[in-house]
Amino acid sequence: MGLVNHKFTLAARPMGLPKRTDWSYTEESVRELAEGELLIKVLLISLDPAMRGWMNESRSYVPPVGIGEVMRALAIGQVVASRNPRFEVNKYVSGTLGVQEYFITDGKALMEVDPRIAPLPVFLSTLGMTGMTAYFGLLDTGRPEPGDTVVVSAAAGAVGAVVGQIAKIKGCRVVGIAGGASKCHYLLADLGFDTAIDYKSEDVTAALRKSCPTGINIYFDNVGGDILEAGLANLARGARIVICGAISQYNNTGPVQGPRNYLSLLVNRATMKGMLVFDYMDRYKDAIREMAGWMAAGKLKSREDIIEGLSSFPDALLQLFKGENFGKLILKVAEH
Amino acid sequence: MGLVNHKFTLAARPMGLPKRTDWSYTEESVRELAEGELLIKVLLISLDPAMRGWMNESRSYVPPVGIGEVMRALAIGQVVASRNPRFEVNKYVSGTLGVQEYFITDGKALMEVDPRIAPLPVFLSTLGMTGMTAYFGLLDTGRPEPGDTVVVSAAAGAVGAVVGQIAKIKGCRVVGIAGGASKCHYLLADLGFDTAIDYKSEDVTAALRKSCPTGINIYFDNVGGDILEAGLANLARGARIVICGAISQYNNTGPVQGPRNYLSLLVNRATMKGMLVFDYMDRYKDAIREMAGWMAAGKLKSREDIIEGLSSFPDALLQLFKGENFGKLILKVAEH
Repeated sequence: MGLVNHKFTLAARPMGLPKRTDWSYTEESVRELAEGELLIKVLLISLDPAMRGWMNESRSYVPPVGIGEVMRALAIGQVVASRNPRFEVNKYVSGTLGVQEYFITDGKALMEVDPRIAPLPVFLSTLGMTGMTAYFGLLDTGRPEPGDTVVVSAAAGAVGAVVGQIAKIKGCRVVGIAGGASKCHYLLADLGFDTAIDYKSEDVTAALRKSCPTGINIYFDNVGGDILEAGLANLARGARIVICGAISQYNNTGPVQGPRNYLSLLVNRATMKGMLVFDYMDRYKDAIREMAGWMAAGKLKSREDIIEGLSSFPDALLQLFKGENFGKLILKVAEH
Repeated sequence: MGLVNHKFTLAARPMGLPKRTDWSYTEESVRELAEGELLIKVLLISLDPAMRGWMNESRSYVPPVGIGEVMRALAIGQVVASRNPRFEVNKYVSGTLGVQEYFITDGKALMEVDPRIAPLPVFLSTLGMTGMTAYFGLLDTGRPEPGDTVVVSAAAGAVGAVVGQIAKIKGCRVVGIAGGASKCHYLLADLGFDTAIDYKSEDVTAALRKSCPTGINIYFDNVGGDILEAGLANLARGARIVICGAISQYNNTGPVQGPRNYLSLLVNRATMKGMLVFDYMDRYKDAIREMAGWMAAGKLKSREDIIEGLSSFPDALLQLFKGENFGKLILKVAEH
């Protein structure tokens, strides 16, 4: 076909924030398809905090990306050639396509995406893994009841914004923690949060004490570190802490900061529970249907922060760890 | 009546391990009883890790002991005078009697103790708060299933020894972590644990990896610190960590060591939950009946480490924090 694939492979395991030299940007010819395979043109790449963990040597819930391998990434693409009867040319699909322009697969781990339901980027944000993480993390692990006080960190981030909105739909009081006045304004004015705390200008522990006078019933944590400790310091009896991520700790060169006040779990008979979205795969379809319904009804807003060009990948990923993104960070690789 | 009460009051809030000068040992005349009151002669005082927390300024699940107040302690005593029709002279009772020889009360927070069921010290250990903590912590918070691998820290301590034995009764594989060869021998030879790890001579993380090849299903933690991290490093998917205490951290002069690998909760979809025995008060009676049955059937052994004399209190309490006790540490104040 004469196509050329550009891709980012992992050149070195980063210490701290990934540097430009931790990546190789290379090109290769796209090979011919074998029987049963299809060729996908990558359109949109999801940039996720979890990617930092995949770059480390240690095995987590998935094996690490190997040195010299294409960087793992969720993405949306379009089928441009197919020798697989299940996938017609021109269909849109989502899957682990990698940080590259073309992907060849047998199609087994792909999901079809229907662009009539929502714009394509939304399938990487609210109707994608991000939204699924928020949905199952809050509803299954957090178990909100009407009237609960729900606190979410990284609240203007991709997962946090959806968590807070679902909590409002479920009748909870919602407090969001975010960095900077414009993100806080977004939480209050656009997403309908009850309170926003700016961790860059406020003492989060004191602000939580003030905004949660009867304590926190659910704390949905995306960040770890000091903000997790501020949450632990303000729990209500029987509180649930959902451990979804710890972006403040992913680029540490020293040890992770463990929550020094974890004995608040004992004092408050509270629960801290970790969740991984992949465990809910068999329920994605129902969740997407419900979330799409909320979006159609105007109860749930999706916001994407789109950066152009595959070659922007190393810098775009850093924006995530610097908290510079506003909504779901997506790399646009090709027009659709 | 001309009786004299000797008592230990809190003279200063300790920094680190309580010093002799943190206590006042004083005497006073025992006053006359008012209508509805009863006078209890204290016989046996329970020495518990939780006492260290009660000496700190900060409010926890109970208010701190005030400077100049009698040190709070669970104890067993005998009614020696009564103007309360609910309590006859000579009856045995348990309650928060304090570190002293006599206690006057309206009887509202007392429980009667029946010495025909078990020797009196057992009502402070296996059939007391200690045993209740083990029973409800393991069964309600840990939720053991037959075949589960259960790990318990401070396993030769008062709570740990009961946790391990109940786990065996419930058909689990039990690994105990304790300090020193004689404690480890006790776990294996006397209590029927499957494996014992000596944290003083072994690398606990490596020893857990070896003894729990399919991972830990329930980790019952009494100690915190490095040993909690060793537990977190060896979880099975869906593991439950019961946070019962953190004796390694109670005398820290610096900050508590938070578990630096708490993200193992996320990777393993695991739960860390705190428990306090007082929440189960309305179920104590049934639990005591079941535990007494296990004791009568020879399935559950109770071991008490009894130190003589009220004046030994400051040193006896230190034995607890130094891990020198073997079984439930009890201070014997008077003959019974």
